Amino acid sequence: MNDLTRYARTLAEQARDASRELATTTGESRDEWLGRIAELLEMRTDELISANQQDLELAREQGLSSASIDRLELTAERIGGMSSALAEIANLSDPIGEVISSRDRPNGLSVQQVRVPLGVVFFIYESRPNVTVDAAALCVKGGNAVILRGGKEALHSNQALSRLLVEAALASDLPAHAVQLVETADRAVVGELLVLDEFIDVTIPRGGKSLIERVASEAKMPVIKHFDGVCHVFVDVAADPQMAQEIVVNSKCQRPGVCNAAESLLVHAGIAGTFLPNVASALVERGVSLRGCAATCELVEAAEVATEEDFGTEYLDLVLSVRVVEDVVAAIEHINAYGSRHTDAIVTADPETARRFTGAVDSSAVMVNASTRFNDGGEFGLGAEIGISTDKFHARGPCGLRELTSYKYVVEGTGQIRE
Amino acid sequence: MNDLTRYARTLAEQARDASRELATTTGESRDEWLGRIAELLEMRTDELISANQQDLELAREQGLSSASIDRLELTAERIGGMSSALAEIANLSDPIGEVISSRDRPNGLSVQQVRVPLGVVFFIYESRPNVTVDAAALCVKGGNAVILRGGKEALHSNQALSRLLVEAALASDLPAHAVQLVETADRAVVGELLVLDEFIDVTIPRGGKSLIERVASEAKMPVIKHFDGVCHVFVDVAADPQMAQEIVVNSKCQRPGVCNAAESLLVHAGIAGTFLPNVASALVERGVSLRGCAATCELVEAAEVATEEDFGTEYLDLVLSVRVVEDVVAAIEHINAYGSRHTDAIVTADPETARRFTGAVDSSAVMVNASTRFNDGGEFGLGAEIGISTDKFHARGPCGLRELTSYKYVVEGTGQIRE
Repeated sequence: MNDLTRYARTLAEQARDASRELATTTGESRDEWLGRIAELLEMRTDELISANQQDLELAREQGLSSASIDRLELTAERIGGMSSALAEIANLSDPIGEVISSRDRPNGLSVQQVRVPLGVVFFIYESRPNVTVDAAALCVKGGNAVILRGGKEALHSNQALSRLLVEAALASDLPAHAVQLVETADRAVVGELLVLDEFIDVTIPRGGKSLIERVASEAKMPVIKHFDGVCHVFVDVAADPQMAQEIVVNSKCQRPGVCNAAESLLVHAGIAGTFLPNVASALVERGVSLRGCAATCELVEAAEVATEEDFGTEYLDLVLSVRVVEDVVAAIEHINAYGSRHTDAIVTADPETARRFTGAVDSSAVMVNASTRFNDGGEFGLGAEIGISTDKFHARGPCGLRELTSYKYVVEGTGQIRE
Repeated sequence: MNDLTRYARTLAEQARDASRELATTTGESRDEWLGRIAELLEMRTDELISANQQDLELAREQGLSSASIDRLELTAERIGGMSSALAEIANLSDPIGEVISSRDRPNGLSVQQVRVPLGVVFFIYESRPNVTVDAAALCVKGGNAVILRGGKEALHSNQALSRLLVEAALASDLPAHAVQLVETADRAVVGELLVLDEFIDVTIPRGGKSLIERVASEAKMPVIKHFDGVCHVFVDVAADPQMAQEIVVNSKCQRPGVCNAAESLLVHAGIAGTFLPNVASALVERGVSLRGCAATCELVEAAEVATEEDFGTEYLDLVLSVRVVEDVVAAIEHINAYGSRHTDAIVTADPETARRFTGAVDSSAVMVNASTRFNDGGEFGLGAEIGISTDKFHARGPCGLRELTSYKYVVEGTGQIRE
């Protein structure tokens, strides 16, 4: 066993032991921990900012983009934002111990399905340091131990933050290894951890597609994946054109670089002649490039001809593919063929058409007369989220506190045996 | 692409297409299908028995054990049993479309979490032909398409049964590919199917450990695993000795070859001196071999010395490891160290001790004053089950109809956009 293998195994075993202690802690003690973190963040703001300066200096030396440096930076205001997020998480009701279902059997057995923590979460993320606190808070609130692997650019910031998380744990009688940061920059440690399914119950990678693919292929434990968002807006013949235009523009332009932004517009042939030229002007005005099917290009001068590849592409940029479709059935077929099961919207005033669409589109969230941008744990009222799952297994769509739990059956009898 | 690759891909694509149709069928049409299968089973009993004869002849020629041949055999009575199972599944309420949660947001959005099918299930099982009908019924009742891979010994029986399932589907307006049987005996087809995560949403292997390990390591999609059942009974100092003895004997002897049978007995030191000799006589009388710790061997003449390996072994036979432990804390530690998170029981009259045990033992079912043998979908009142999951992810313990579903968010607005 080499040093890295040993290091990974130690982290994982410590996490597993901590998770067993955490499973029997009270919700009050976990909320007390959240409160102490907020206190310590305020008391240690200067220390955190100075650790962050080390990361920022290295980042500048290494010529990181100004966008990357901005994401990395900690300010007093951003640290205040972490505290607000903690307060929100503390306000969520404790999921652990919740009785999900309860049955009294004819033989007198009481069978309860009780919510329990998942156990150990291995969370891999990129360089925004606030994620360190958010993710740890959500995992531990759910009774889980967490192993954090942040971006190497943020190592000094994350070390300072994780020291503070541990200090708060000890002060709240939570196990010291409830939160552990992977402190080596060696990327091979991730591979070592991904095979320790004996100790780690789930891995959650948040980052680019290549990271998620690597994790999904190497991990021996379950992975909550967050793949592409190839999101569509379908404008039905029965749509209010003004509402449809606002929803299309918002879905595409409000924040084009995120997974729930629209990448493709489908327009019912019966409304395309009037609707498409108008929405195209509004989009072009906001700097959007259009890639259209033949019918679109006839109606919209600004549209380039879309290739087959354009449909199904996640641009994450001010680009939109556009197709005129026969009806809602063709829209559904297009979405199920080219989409990524993330978020798709219909604009229509016809409830029957809406029902067909929401029934047949196989995506984590299906929107009727609303922007795709609402597929988000906060917007859905779930509280904080650790990611948006494109899987259908265990957790789909926004993953909040409840998605970080499992259950067990607790059966109480009076001596029953099986005949 | 060779023939087998093409065959697997065709099955998977057809299943995916069928699953999309199934997702929008009504519960009534799926129940109608179940009713027609029962009718056809009665009408075709002779035909099924004659197909089964072919399998039985081959099995005898190949020298299969009489136990294997018995499992393989279809009789009119067993076919009647399949019909009863179908009626039970038809009686379960339709899970599809169930609103799991519902939230009205301050901006007027209505956010509903709606239960939907998982999609396509790939089910791999051994040679009892009734499983073909049970598993297909449960999957399709949950709106899923299913690809069935039964044991090659049962191929003729399964072909006759699956023709009947398809005939019933067509008569009930369900897609013809809702149920598909893998008809080649070539084992490589399993490997081909396990990489088609683009089409198959979950694989459920039911069989020996080597099958499950192979599937878990090759599958690119999620797997619902059913590993060992290393189940314990802990007899606390506050146990009623008579009740404890009945529970121990039932957990070990009622059906020793199944996963929820007890493999290990833990006895509180404070009760061992009186309890152990009595329970040992009762067990030995039923042919059970005991493998004990040093303290056990002092009290029980019949006990052999247990090796470290005995604790943690799934005997699936009339063998029981026995250890005297200091208290409930030591029992919990032993179970979490040597158990397999399947089923563990405590016998105690002390509610506080029971609470500590159920809180800290990390198993799919934790029993208080009841036999381990009750960890079963039918006994829990879930209706039919497709297996017992030893995972904590998605489904834990008995997997019934609900565990074969996922959910989507359906969001209804009046033109909301995100600021």
